[in-house]
Amino acid sequence: MNSRPRTGIIGLGSMGYGMAQSLLRAGHDVLAFDIAAEPVARIVADGARSGDIEHLAAEMDCAVIAVLNAAQTATVLLGQPDRPGLVGLMRPGATIISCATIAPEDARRLHARAAKAGLHYLDAPISGGAGKAAAGKLSIMAAGKVQAFGGAHPALDAMAEVVFDMGREPGRGSAMKAVNQMLVGIHISAMAEAITFALSQGIDPARCHEVITRCAGTSWAFENRAPHVVGGDYHPASAVDIWPKDLGIVLDAARAARFPAPLTAAALQQFLAASGSGLGGEDDAAVAKVYARNAGLQLPGDGQ
Amino acid sequence: MNSRPRTGIIGLGSMGYGMAQSLLRAGHDVLAFDIAAEPVARIVADGARSGDIEHLAAEMDCAVIAVLNAAQTATVLLGQPDRPGLVGLMRPGATIISCATIAPEDARRLHARAAKAGLHYLDAPISGGAGKAAAGKLSIMAAGKVQAFGGAHPALDAMAEVVFDMGREPGRGSAMKAVNQMLVGIHISAMAEAITFALSQGIDPARCHEVITRCAGTSWAFENRAPHVVGGDYHPASAVDIWPKDLGIVLDAARAARFPAPLTAAALQQFLAASGSGLGGEDDAAVAKVYARNAGLQLPGDGQ
Repeated sequence: MNSRPRTGIIGLGSMGYGMAQSLLRAGHDVLAFDIAAEPVARIVADGARSGDIEHLAAEMDCAVIAVLNAAQTATVLLGQPDRPGLVGLMRPGATIISCATIAPEDARRLHARAAKAGLHYLDAPISGGAGKAAAGKLSIMAAGKVQAFGGAHPALDAMAEVVFDMGREPGRGSAMKAVNQMLVGIHISAMAEAITFALSQGIDPARCHEVITRCAGTSWAFENRAPHVVGGDYHPASAVDIWPKDLGIVLDAARAARFPAPLTAAALQQFLAASGSGLGGEDDAAVAKVYARNAGLQLPGDGQ
Repeated sequence: MNSRPRTGIIGLGSMGYGMAQSLLRAGHDVLAFDIAAEPVARIVADGARSGDIEHLAAEMDCAVIAVLNAAQTATVLLGQPDRPGLVGLMRPGATIISCATIAPEDARRLHARAAKAGLHYLDAPISGGAGKAAAGKLSIMAAGKVQAFGGAHPALDAMAEVVFDMGREPGRGSAMKAVNQMLVGIHISAMAEAITFALSQGIDPARCHEVITRCAGTSWAFENRAPHVVGGDYHPASAVDIWPKDLGIVLDAARAARFPAPLTAAALQQFLAASGSGLGGEDDAAVAKVYARNAGLQLPGDGQ
């Protein structure tokens, strides 16, 4: 009997690749898949196995789905007309860990489909960025049945610094992630609003950053993103285009609950303006360019 | 020659009283004034002097104006039809420290009037709350001429943990304070939006607080105010009604600069709804009650 957990990971982007590395480091027998050949070749060189998922899925004790959104998660889990998904391939009793930021309602729907196939489903969105993924230090907001937590345990141990147990109802992990994204999105747009407003009042962005980080106006997002504006560096650590998606999830859930969310709605408009004006692939701090443009202000790095 | 700095303080509210105590503790000869008799009697018992400001103002090396807003600051500085203000009473060469949160434009106007009377004027709004005022550990965002900083130095040393030098142009201190208030106001409303949205998704406020303070969604305001919502305690540490005033200052300055500030505007509407529905005197975390009411949700403490 093989005592190494056999863990699949589907999606080898900036988050999934690091998670696969963390699984390997923790001694898992890692079965790794991506639609792109390059990251698959790299992770195989690192010690993972790959190949035809239709043959290998039955070997997995647990599969981590680390793709971009709900549509991709559904494709991996449920398949497409011409090919089966994990629900048709994995052994009953195996566990799915769904890590993309998706709507709570999607998490409930996918859980129901997995349960019908005899699979355990952990609604487990992740937080922390690529560096923490590679270090096995993610924050994971997880909800699911006791058996889902049981089956997910070895992989969670390898990937997470902290797992917030949001209870036995799938959807609550995604809801908690939505609450976090609501705040981060608002705070990033507020950072941009504040730094450019300061500029309109004759205050240098670097000085504004220095003062605010030592005052009551500070936030994690301000401390993390304001330096990008101060340095005029919009190389994407996290891109503008994440926010129309994530704040869209928040506002869809809010609308369904008849919950008015005016700050979230205002922040979304700013990110839409950033994306719509061609900044979608830049770092999300580039929402400051929308504010600057609307007020005729020059940011650091402008005109260089 | 008396080597103790003779420092006036006008306004003995929750901030001014603590500042007067800090001045006394630092060995200043404190001349204290308020329209209410009770705090004057208390600070005199603590060792300050008081009496008729029209006779005592000429003794002051420096006067700290710690009243509520621009209108009160102007009354103290410029007087009223029936009584002179500090500009007609203090010796030329003495220094004014203006601490209320006022518009940058008001700071420039008051500076000009003080300068005409031969007084130095430091535009020096404060941050930190009553506890820090009493401990001499305020943050002060100060702008003014070199002579104003020179004359204010002994009082600033007694009252502040940190003085941010915002440069030689009066108005820049108030502008920096406005930027900070913009962020704090947005973040408090965002805290309320997030905790009540979480509730709409079945997540307990205490659990939401616990998770967010360990995630990227956190802010100083969230960490400071969310416990009030979780505990259902709206005893005012800082009242709702501060925000229509302070965000009004921000939006007036923004409008004058042709600077669109959509998140600030959205946050102001929420505080106006709180104030307009009778919550103006409650702690500013009570903006959560607006969100809860609009979504038909019960907050901790509701119905008790």
